[in-house]
Order: sequence, then structure tokens, then C-alpha cells
Amino acid sequence: MIVQKYGGSSLSTIDKMRKIASRIIQSFEEKGPLIVVLSAMGNATNDLLHLASNASKNPSKRELDMLLATGEQVSTSLLSMMLNDANKKAVALNGFQAGIKTEGKFTKNKIKDIDINRINHYLNNDTIVIITGFQGVNQTGDITTLGRGGSDTTAVALSAKYLCDCEIYTDVDGIYTMDPRFQKNAKKLSIISYEEMSELAYLGANIMEPRAVEIAQKYNVNVYVGSAHEKKGGTWIKENPKMIEQKHITGLSVKDDIVMISLHKMANGQKNIATLFNALAEHEINVDMISQTPLENNLLSLAFTAPIEDLIAIKSILKPFRENHTIASIDIDTTLSKVSLVGIGMRSYSGIASRIFELLNIHAIDYKLTTTSDISISYTIPTNQTRLATQILAEAFNLGVES
Amino acid sequence: MIVQKYGGSSLSTIDKMRKIASRIIQSFEEKGPLIVVLSAMGNATNDLLHLASNASKNPSKRELDMLLATGEQVSTSLLSMMLNDANKKAVALNGFQAGIKTEGKFTKNKIKDIDINRINHYLNNDTIVIITGFQGVNQTGDITTLGRGGSDTTAVALSAKYLCDCEIYTDVDGIYTMDPRFQKNAKKLSIISYEEMSELAYLGANIMEPRAVEIAQKYNVNVYVGSAHEKKGGTWIKENPKMIEQKHITGLSVKDDIVMISLHKMANGQKNIATLFNALAEHEINVDMISQTPLENNLLSLAFTAPIEDLIAIKSILKPFRENHTIASIDIDTTLSKVSLVGIGMRSYSGIASRIFELLNIHAIDYKLTTTSDISISYTIPTNQTRLATQILAEAFNLGVES
Repeated sequence: MIVQKYGGSSLSTIDKMRKIASRIIQSFEEKGPLIVVLSAMGNATNDLLHLASNASKNPSKRELDMLLATGEQVSTSLLSMMLNDANKKAVALNGFQAGIKTEGKFTKNKIKDIDINRINHYLNNDTIVIITGFQGVNQTGDITTLGRGGSDTTAVALSAKYLCDCEIYTDVDGIYTMDPRFQKNAKKLSIISYEEMSELAYLGANIMEPRAVEIAQKYNVNVYVGSAHEKKGGTWIKENPKMIEQKHITGLSVKDDIVMISLHKMANGQKNIATLFNALAEHEINVDMISQTPLENNLLSLAFTAPIEDLIAIKSILKPFRENHTIASIDIDTTLSKVSLVGIGMRSYSGIASRIFELLNIHAIDYKLTTTSDISISYTIPTNQTRLATQILAEAFNLGVES
Repeated sequence: MIVQKYGGSSLSTIDKMRKIASRIIQSFEEKGPLIVVLSAMGNATNDLLHLASNASKNPSKRELDMLLATGEQVSTSLLSMMLNDANKKAVALNGFQAGIKTEGKFTKNKIKDIDINRINHYLNNDTIVIITGFQGVNQTGDITTLGRGGSDTTAVALSAKYLCDCEIYTDVDGIYTMDPRFQKNAKKLSIISYEEMSELAYLGANIMEPRAVEIAQKYNVNVYVGSAHEKKGGTWIKENPKMIEQKHITGLSVKDDIVMISLHKMANGQKNIATLFNALAEHEINVDMISQTPLENNLLSLAFTAPIEDLIAIKSILKPFRENHTIASIDIDTTLSKVSLVGIGMRSYSGIASRIFELLNIHAIDYKLTTTSDISISYTIPTNQTRLATQILAEAFNLGVES
């Protein structure tokens, strides 16, 4: 029993889809029972979003979910037709038919449970089950979607239910120490731990939906991430593999398009920070790094980063906030990138942070904000210095292939 | 309480859809509770069919229904967004959410029942309910579609359930005595009986789905057919209105693109006819007119018409059939059209058939096959004589506007 997930880029045309159909048939014949989770074809979800934004300035979320859910219904029914055409028993199931039950919320819902009775009926009948990713049905029977990358979540949740491996096929051929689109010498990892993958996903590596990694970790699902066009050579995401413990740093990620907001010398700090972050949360602004420093006289300074696309919303919150509170000054800096280093090895090896600070200092890289977690450390640095910084850090922590 | 149905051509763009949204709001404010049934946007259904035919030479019907059903889910969710945007409470429901229960079959299913609990919940809450036409869910939870024109069926079935009027808005502004696209002097009818409408629909007038008319008749639903861009001036379909009884003929229709097959001097007629028509039914060929004449020596001659697009399939059936049976000759004629005259008046006025035969004879119109029903009479005549025939018949039975 395996769950496979194919992303939209490998389903963007009928011809590409036909190749995926062949792969699925081969896998079924070689390895047996199979659940396949699909994203929408190519840019279908974006096209539907575009249609919605033409129809309404502020599309109601319930109807938006109903609209977006059609994307996967199209891809699954077409793929199932192809399998039937090749004389394979196959059936396409949408979220409601596959028993994928979600919580009440729209557009960014969570899977509550999966009623696998109907899936089992087909599996027991030698049928390949093709399930729409990204969607489910809530208690009132409304269609709800799981947010961007939600098909990963669907696939991992099904694997958790069936206690089987999950294969995520995508347009990258595995997980690298650094982003191979920008770092030519990035090394591909054959294995990575859930925790490192979680940090990498949250830190902007964009390979797999963070919630999907969380579910995999919670239910101990082995996840394979690899190319939809190759059979092997991808990366396994598993529980703390020993070989990784020996490395200090597993991966490095760079996130551009961030904005850093600094509020200097704010009075009545703690209460006001709560007010500010409540307002940001209400506007669904994903605040990322947060750093605050207490000053004398009950003053404090606060800095945080957020995606640059939220800048207009942030400004609309800061304006009244500033009027109602005592703040010396507010800086908005859009010239920065975030560089993060991740590794379980950080736990057991001390001195990694100091080594990084030393390297940045030697090379005059002007870091602003620093935040750390148990297995990661992140810096905001000027975007025009990211090339230099990644080069130095990759070399220091052996992240690149030898040239 | 009203049910309104809007066809795909009035929903082909976001702008057109916005006009429909305004109409719906106005109707809701003026007349109260409203269920709206929508077709897919413009050519969406054909585009999806095209996608399916690219994916598979012979798409499995279950998956095809699942694919096609997305068309109405897109149009209903977009329209509902527009109504919400205008601060109107509205909700889009697909077939399963609207409780539209169908029988087991795919692609040409029938509505078995409608569980209106969920619809009522919204109606009681001052919400405009937008329902996907053309689709429902069968007992096993599979999505099934109702065949071409199935949205009409959905709308009329909902009207039957609510004992209310049904308004069908389309790209024609009513029902005419003849097809106004080809007969410039056709007269618009303000009222027509179910029976006449049934005959006109079956005979090729293509304005409303025949099954929808049947359901309207069965449950005595008053149906208004009119333009989606005008408010009045359409045609009511009702139970035998008296004013129509006084006319001999209510309408005339012409159907091109037919093929007439004639089998001459076939032995063991009755048994063989059954074999042949079983084979045609298995290939889902819509045999239309059928005429058979017994000859001496247990021989008979048979002629029937079918849509010209079924000719290849018909030939594939006739070839083995001819080899296995004794038939003097088989003719295939693709140069014919079918002209039909419909009127409840035929019941009470005798001599209409003879008047028509006389007219055709006088003007040397070469009719081949003739079939009659209680309120209609149809002829196949050479396509190049249809213009002359309709002119003569329209004049004789007062079907044209006075010029």
C-alpha cells in the first residue's frame, strides 16, 4: 500500500498527464494497492483565482473554496479516464466522496478525519483510487480547501490513516542543502529528518507544505520527495536518521521579498505588543521573525519581518497604532533577505551560532535581526549580500558539492 | 417563490454574468424567495468534453460526469460571489449539496427525488439559493449528469417540488410558430400547451429539454421561456390553454442533418426488426421516425431516420445485419430534412393530414416518410424543398406574421 501525490506542474497538459498515468500503472503492477492524490492541472488554480477576482473584489470564502475545488475534480476525472482507457480499474473521488472531513473554516482548513470506508471498498476491488488533493467537506456539507500546498497535506493524511509510505512527486528531484535554482553547487540529501524539513519548509524552501511535514512527523509517515519524471534519486523525510546527527548543518535557505519593521522606544511595551500582533493576526499577516529588546524606563524596541505583499496592510495597521501609542520612530526596510541555517546537529554541537557570527563579521555582512530555534538560526541581511553570505556559509558547513 | 434558470450563453463572460446577478437581485427584491439554477458558462461544457476526448478515446461515463459537473460548480460559485459582493445573502449549492438525487445511470440520468431540507434552511434565512443545473448524486454518492439541456430539467423539477412557476431564461425570446432563425416571418406565441411544446421539442425545435417539458406537464408547473436580457414578452407553457384549441396548427419545425435508412423486402420481418433496433439502442442511436410496411410472403419494408452524426455507427450495425439476413436492398439517403407540424387542434379538426398531403402534392414536394402522432404530423422531404414547403404550410395554417 502506497499513497502517491503528483503536483500540478506534472499534470499541466494531457500529454504530461498520460506519462503520469503510465507511471501509476507501472507502480500498481509492481507494488500493488495504490491511492493517488492529485493537484489541479498546471495553472488551473491560479486561473480560477483570477476568475474569482474578476467576479468579486472580495470573493466570499465559501464560494471561493467551491470554485477552487473544481480544479482537482477536473484533473482526477481525466487521469481516471486514462487509466480506465488502459483497462485498469480506477475511480476518481472528490473530497466528499473520499470521506475527507474538515473543520469549519474556509480557504485554509484542516483535515479533521478521513472516513476510509469508500476508499477501502475500491481498494479491496483492485481499483486504483484517485483522490482530489487540497479539499474536503466540513460538517455542514460545504466544500472547504486546505490552502496552498494542501494536496501534500491530503496525501500525508491518507498515508497516516493507512500507516503506509507517502511519495510526493513534484518538479524538483529532491531536497537540497540549498535552493538549487540559485545555488548551483547545492548538494541533494538522500535523507532528512522531519524537524529539519519542518524548519526548511517554514523558512522558505517551498518544497513541501509545512503542515504536511507536521502530520508526517506526528504519525511517523515516511515521505519520499522526488521528480515526477524519474524513479529514484529523491529524498526521504524520516524520523531523526543517525547519519544526519553527524552533520552540524543540513541545509541553508534564503527568503527574499520580506519587509522588516522596526519600532523604536515604544512605551508600555508588553501590552502594546499584544495589541499590535492581534491586529496583524486579524489581517492574516504572517509575521515571521520577531525580536524585541527591553530598554530602560519601561520602553522597548521591537522588530519583525513579514512577506512584502502584506506591506500595504501592515502600513494601514501601523498608522492608527502610531497615533495612539508613544513610539520614538518606525522604520520600514524592504532591502533585506532572510538567510537561515538548519540542522539537528545544532542541538549537540555548541558554538555553531558563534561560528556564524564570526564568519558574517569577518566578511562584513551587515546582519540586522537574528532569531534562533532549537535546530535553526536565521538572519536578515541586505539582499545584495546574500550571494556572498551563502557562499561563505556553504563552504564553512560543507553544504556544496565538491567542484 | 420562483425558480429561475439561466442558460450558458447568458453566462459566457464575467460581464454578462454580472448583468444576470443584477436581474436576480431585482427579482428577489420585487418578488421574494428565489432559487436560481445555472448552466455552465458559455462553452465550458464543450471545452470539458474536448478535454475528455483528448484524454481518452472512449471516456468512462462515471468520470466524464464528474468532469462535466465542474462546469456548473464554477458558474454557480462565481454568481454567488457577485451576489455576496452586492451585500445579498446567497449560497451556491452543487447537486449533492442541493439534495438532487438521481438514478444509477451516468451521462443521461434522471432525477429521482430532491431532498429540499438544506435549500429550505437557506430560503428561510432570506438567502438566494444558486443551484448547479444538469447534475445530481446517485445512491452510491457518484456524481451523475442529466444529459444535454439537463439544467432545464433541474429547474422544472425544483418548481414541481415547490409548486411554483419556473422561468427559463435563454438566448431566444420565446417560442415561435416556426424557427425564427430560418423563418423570418415566424410568429411568437404568448402561450403554448405542454403537449404541443413536447412535440415541438422532440421534433427538433431545440428550445427546451423534452424531459423538462414532460415533468412540467406531469406536475402542472407553469413554465415561462424568455430572453435573459428582457423582462417580458416570452412564452408561457401551460396546461391546454383554450385560445390554442381554436387553432389547427400551433407550430412548424424543420430538422436538417438527418439520415433516412430504408431496408427493402426483408424476410422474417418482426423478429429481425427487433434485432436491428436492439443493436441501434445498444449504440445509443436516437432513431426518430419509423415506418414499416408489410408486404406479401412474410416480407416487409422498413424505413427510419436518425441524426446524421450516427451514420458511421449505423453502417457498422447494418453491415453484419445484412450479411445475416435476407434483404433485397438497403438505401441510405442523406439529402433529406424533416418537416413537422404540431397542434392540439389536430385532435378536434379532422382533415388536416389530407390538407397537407394535398398541398405537398400540388407543389410537387417529394415527401418520402410520413409519421403521425395525436397532435403532430411529420414528413421527410428533400432538403432543397424545405424552403418551399415551410412557405406553403405557414401560409395555409396562418403561422407567419402578416407582412
